[in-house]
Amino acid sequence: MDHRLIQELVTPANTKIVLLVLDGLGGLPGKPDGLTALEKADTPHLDNLAGRGICGLHEAVRAGITPGSGAGHLALFGYDPVEFRIGRGVLAALGTGFELRRNDVAARGNFCTIDEGGNVVDRRAGRIPTDKNEELCELLREIELPDVELFVEPVKEHRFLLVLRGEGLSGEVSDTDPQATGRAPLEPKPHGSEASRTAELVGRFARQARERLAGHEPANMVLLRGFATLPEWPSFQEIYNLKAAAIASYPMYLGVARLLGIKTVDTGPSFEEKLASLREHWDEFDFFFVHVKGTDSSGEDGDFARKVREIERVDAAIPRLLELRPDVVIVTGDHSTPAVLRAHSWHPVPVVLWSEYCRSDPVKRFGERACVEGGLGPHFPATDLMPLALANALRLEKFGA
Amino acid sequence: MDHRLIQELVTPANTKIVLLVLDGLGGLPGKPDGLTALEKADTPHLDNLAGRGICGLHEAVRAGITPGSGAGHLALFGYDPVEFRIGRGVLAALGTGFELRRNDVAARGNFCTIDEGGNVVDRRAGRIPTDKNEELCELLREIELPDVELFVEPVKEHRFLLVLRGEGLSGEVSDTDPQATGRAPLEPKPHGSEASRTAELVGRFARQARERLAGHEPANMVLLRGFATLPEWPSFQEIYNLKAAAIASYPMYLGVARLLGIKTVDTGPSFEEKLASLREHWDEFDFFFVHVKGTDSSGEDGDFARKVREIERVDAAIPRLLELRPDVVIVTGDHSTPAVLRAHSWHPVPVVLWSEYCRSDPVKRFGERACVEGGLGPHFPATDLMPLALANALRLEKFGA
Repeated sequence: MDHRLIQELVTPANTKIVLLVLDGLGGLPGKPDGLTALEKADTPHLDNLAGRGICGLHEAVRAGITPGSGAGHLALFGYDPVEFRIGRGVLAALGTGFELRRNDVAARGNFCTIDEGGNVVDRRAGRIPTDKNEELCELLREIELPDVELFVEPVKEHRFLLVLRGEGLSGEVSDTDPQATGRAPLEPKPHGSEASRTAELVGRFARQARERLAGHEPANMVLLRGFATLPEWPSFQEIYNLKAAAIASYPMYLGVARLLGIKTVDTGPSFEEKLASLREHWDEFDFFFVHVKGTDSSGEDGDFARKVREIERVDAAIPRLLELRPDVVIVTGDHSTPAVLRAHSWHPVPVVLWSEYCRSDPVKRFGERACVEGGLGPHFPATDLMPLALANALRLEKFGA
Repeated sequence: MDHRLIQELVTPANTKIVLLVLDGLGGLPGKPDGLTALEKADTPHLDNLAGRGICGLHEAVRAGITPGSGAGHLALFGYDPVEFRIGRGVLAALGTGFELRRNDVAARGNFCTIDEGGNVVDRRAGRIPTDKNEELCELLREIELPDVELFVEPVKEHRFLLVLRGEGLSGEVSDTDPQATGRAPLEPKPHGSEASRTAELVGRFARQARERLAGHEPANMVLLRGFATLPEWPSFQEIYNLKAAAIASYPMYLGVARLLGIKTVDTGPSFEEKLASLREHWDEFDFFFVHVKGTDSSGEDGDFARKVREIERVDAAIPRLLELRPDVVIVTGDHSTPAVLRAHSWHPVPVVLWSEYCRSDPVKRFGERACVEGGLGPHFPATDLMPLALANALRLEKFGA
């Protein structure tokens, strides 16, 4: 999808688009009836939407590639995740809800174990419990670096987030993680001269961390990787001329939305609360990204039956979404999360797009196999969804007028 | 398909992939029942695989483009044949089974007829019989060039292969074939100075060929074209981290495999012998390319009934392939060869991919029209097959973790 082409053609309209993302929606059959969770679920309202809408399955990255959460959402928002790469440190910041500023440098940190000779013996410090991690992050926060503000945020087990804030910092610094045991942590190296001060500061941080963590075995050292700054991308508003709102509870999805300049609004964890937020802010925005997490977490837990129930719960509330009379409704996921794999997967994700002008196809049921026969095709690029949404909202002019 | 992206995500696993290529598999209906050879054939085992697998039709090059054998196979191996061009001389060497070395320069040769004024009157020397060609190649082998070893291999009728072996040779030499009658063979010209010695050697070869062939009308001269050296491409192993074996009998397919660093193993011409080789080498490799020629040659001969029989013969042996318990099985062709056209064609080629995690689609029969409704779509790029094979073999990590 070509942002400049879309920008050229975008035209204002008084129409509203809802993108409802059931995280990890796609799946694989559970035993023994051969149905996926979506096929198994009783979804009269989604089926009705499928019957009136146009269906298909999207691929967020490329054929065979399993999308991470950030990548899957970027694709839905029309940013090809292979072209628009989020640095690992930034992704970690988004995941914890840390509000990165321009020029902040973020990195992923691991607590690790080193021996007396300074060599790494366990890159994950025995996966220390998260509350121990929190304690140790307190220690690391006491480190002082000249002219730089320091943030150390616990993530989970042995993982934390490091952020440096100050003038003239750069993300072009190499990892200190040697990616193997039996070797000492690496000295951070600058890629290019404007990163030399940052590399020097990271080196100081690592040395002080070692001093402060001495005696805290197994977590007696840190490894840092994925140094990165916020990317400078064209915003959602610039490309699509849409006032856009994100209605989500998890930091990662709010973070990706903010990265694109999408406003985030307060909401609660349940779908009912999200619908309430949608109603509350209906007049303020043109585009609403509504995120449901339960379909993914049940898949990650390998809990097929719960995934079925999560889908049915959303289905039951669809009429209340439609009561708002959106001009375009898209229901899909950011990737598949089959319960049998207990993980994200590469399988294309079911999509239904409805508008008054969508030109419906023969699909009558919202499910993986039914959608294969849909008008959007069995594996179209997810980045095509935004242009289709705009077209159906009568927000794109003719090309080559 | 982006090799660097795949390389980034590839992860080791203890899984095995079989790519079974029925050369020229796709077809067009024969009269009068309107079925293609694949649709006509009784293929209970392939149909069973289609019912449990995911199906579709692939395009090896681009819409409407008929693939040559080399191009079709490159695409199946995940090398876009438009980007990864094999020089014509190299393709000729692969086709004859000549084992080209790095820096060898290969060219296609034609015997031709020139008149007394030295102008070409027949670019193909009346398509002399192959045994005459062999005789004349003996004569050409006697030509001596300074510091260069010379190979002249008969191909078929008027066509032969010329290879120069030595230090500092280049493939950047222009054709001597004027591509028209009534003109003299062209003087070979170097493209760039490092090819000037090679061009000079080719010129000497052509002059000596004319002397030695004098009186051998109609084959009294040679025309040379498509000078090329082995391409330097990332190997199959480098991209996919797969130990790969090629089980094929024809030089062209073994040659393309070797070009990518795929190991070739001894086998016989029948599918039964190929299955025996597969079983014999099962523990040594992760990826097996198994090639069946009969489906193509019957199509090229315009023998619809024989193509049906060739397909049925393969089908009957599918259970023995499945007995080996591969994790991923792909059955497809490198291009279509409809008997009514007696030639390769541009039509998309049926594919079935099976794995425990393939997510099957509604297709129940392995045939051109049934596959149109498959989850892989009716004309997906053949280069997507390798990423899909790796994903289904659980050999790719998540993107953007």
